[in-house]
Amino acid sequence: MRDFISKKAKQIKPSGIRKFFDIAAESKDVISLGVGEPDFITPWEIRDAGVNSIKKGYTQYTSNKGMIPLREEISQYLKKFSVNFSADDIIITVGASEAIDLSLRAVVDEGDEVLIPDPSYVSYKPCVELAGGVPVSIPCSGKNGFKLTAKALKSVITDKTKVLIFPYPNNPTGGIMEKEFIEEIIPVILEHDLLVISDEIYAELTYGGEHCSIASFDELKDRVVLINGFSKAFAMTGWRVGFVCAPKEILGAMLKIHQYTTICAPIFSQYAALEGLVRGKEDNYAVVNEMRTEYDKRRRFMVKAFNDMGLECFEPKGAFYIFPSVEKLGLTGEEFATKLLRSKKVAVVPGDAFGEFGKYYIRCSYAYSMKNLMEASERIASFVKELKQ
Amino acid sequence: MRDFISKKAKQIKPSGIRKFFDIAAESKDVISLGVGEPDFITPWEIRDAGVNSIKKGYTQYTSNKGMIPLREEISQYLKKFSVNFSADDIIITVGASEAIDLSLRAVVDEGDEVLIPDPSYVSYKPCVELAGGVPVSIPCSGKNGFKLTAKALKSVITDKTKVLIFPYPNNPTGGIMEKEFIEEIIPVILEHDLLVISDEIYAELTYGGEHCSIASFDELKDRVVLINGFSKAFAMTGWRVGFVCAPKEILGAMLKIHQYTTICAPIFSQYAALEGLVRGKEDNYAVVNEMRTEYDKRRRFMVKAFNDMGLECFEPKGAFYIFPSVEKLGLTGEEFATKLLRSKKVAVVPGDAFGEFGKYYIRCSYAYSMKNLMEASERIASFVKELKQ
Repeated sequence: MRDFISKKAKQIKPSGIRKFFDIAAESKDVISLGVGEPDFITPWEIRDAGVNSIKKGYTQYTSNKGMIPLREEISQYLKKFSVNFSADDIIITVGASEAIDLSLRAVVDEGDEVLIPDPSYVSYKPCVELAGGVPVSIPCSGKNGFKLTAKALKSVITDKTKVLIFPYPNNPTGGIMEKEFIEEIIPVILEHDLLVISDEIYAELTYGGEHCSIASFDELKDRVVLINGFSKAFAMTGWRVGFVCAPKEILGAMLKIHQYTTICAPIFSQYAALEGLVRGKEDNYAVVNEMRTEYDKRRRFMVKAFNDMGLECFEPKGAFYIFPSVEKLGLTGEEFATKLLRSKKVAVVPGDAFGEFGKYYIRCSYAYSMKNLMEASERIASFVKELKQ
Repeated sequence: MRDFISKKAKQIKPSGIRKFFDIAAESKDVISLGVGEPDFITPWEIRDAGVNSIKKGYTQYTSNKGMIPLREEISQYLKKFSVNFSADDIIITVGASEAIDLSLRAVVDEGDEVLIPDPSYVSYKPCVELAGGVPVSIPCSGKNGFKLTAKALKSVITDKTKVLIFPYPNNPTGGIMEKEFIEEIIPVILEHDLLVISDEIYAELTYGGEHCSIASFDELKDRVVLINGFSKAFAMTGWRVGFVCAPKEILGAMLKIHQYTTICAPIFSQYAALEGLVRGKEDNYAVVNEMRTEYDKRRRFMVKAFNDMGLECFEPKGAFYIFPSVEKLGLTGEEFATKLLRSKKVAVVPGDAFGEFGKYYIRCSYAYSMKNLMEASERIASFVKELKQ
């Protein structure tokens, strides 16, 4: 029998996060700081809207694009970030995950180069490869808060470059891109006629300031695809509901793919997300703000904990991860994480899961209870102390 | 600004079903026989399980593969069709739609030829094209119940052929493949070392006999990917939950893609599907049988109605469509459907939406109430009578 697996399926690597957690799952009493998922249950009023839609018997497909009222509310919601997309320019997707894959399939041709700030979320590279593109890392460093600089961007552009993935607030680094830093890279994007795919799933989790969306700049009109969703801000991971906004022609191409590969996002999740936005408009997104306040408290605790250990640690400005360097200890992130898991039963993710420039870092999620964070940081501190001796 | 759309996104055509329904949506008082979706609401006990999981606060991701208890129940359920896949050989997907796309991405390389019985469901061809493959039609005809014959299969095989899509019971024709007909093609599959992707989403909607799964044949062990789901048999379209079973290496390749592009199917839908299977085991799938009985009644009504009109009409043996030929009237399916919609306000789907060999047919879904079917068939009869005069 022949080997049936496709070259592209062979090419992509399994997630470094998952790989590590298979090891972690084998041990007992492990405290995990590994998963990139809110520890909050979806707020009750949102769950209630989902329950009601099921009780009412809304169990059929929605239109391919998704329910019109939800797309209208998203269009309104985005104005919060000075972003203008009409309800017609939006597709409701199965989480931001489908949106990332869908955008790349709609625009990437065989051999096209797609730029990805490194380190970044694990799915960009394999999705680029599946679409036939060539992922190209843009080196980012903790020294300037993991920002994407015009210089770094220019250094990797070739005549094959077509797309820039723009993932801020960033998973795993917690880096953000404020207005003035986006303004610095806009001329480069324009000069090289690039398309920007902006993954803003952590937009609501920005600390000490407002999120600045690259889709809000007039100069980039018609060349930004905006991805967001409900998983992080509304604690709705299991519902699988997100959205993508794009210029008309690109959205049309995405819709053709989405109608065949997905049909539509789950109907209850659409009703629930709608409730989240409608309620949020009335009470100024109280549930989102409450969770952000809690994450912020944890963030400050973790930054202090790592600083007290004497580890170099950029203060994250967004998302819910902290990304300390362990280079000083003479270890790679992978070595550190493996030893830490074995000797202290704390699971963190080696930084190289997010790209080659994450090699000397570890990612710790603080989407965990303070109790867990306190216990975990004590164990890490004692581990670091032992290493230093 | 350059044209950002990828070649593959340009290559695929929008669904012929959707195209037609955009026209239909503009008119008032249209009776539709167009949509391939149960008119039943999901049975209450299944909805209740979904509601309970939300109330209990199960709102997070499941594992990438899906919940173990659900995969175990699916493994048990498949024994009903003499099919053996362990819980480990199964991925829970976002409907059968994701499963189709996922299977093709895992096995198709640029230029590989993928055989598709024609007419068949609209998504196979574009999903093959998106994966870089070349879709090749296998001509099927109403004269032998739209069966896939060894002769037709052999006639299209080249040295580039890698995959056979095997979609029975068939949408749109209602054709099925009984044991003896599958046995006829097995030697061809083996001789040419083909992989079979068997889409059995309509397995439970087989009339007057049991569904025979191509995955139940020992000779084909390790070369069948089985796709099924809950949308049709359990009336769960809006929940977006299906599954795919495959030999270990192929499943592993699919899992890598699924973990990046989807993460997991919605958690409530997994709990609801689980309830459907557990309950079904206890009461011999009472809700499934009840719906099948109702579809069967409608099926017989529609066959008689079309025969009475004097239109050639193969008696469908599965799914919930009837696929009469309108060639006798000197019209293509598209011409017939367009005129019918304009003059009698009945919406049916032109057969060429399902492939070139559907050109002289129309697809009528009978997943509608008897009241609608009676009114629609009266209008079609009067339209045919006028055409004949």
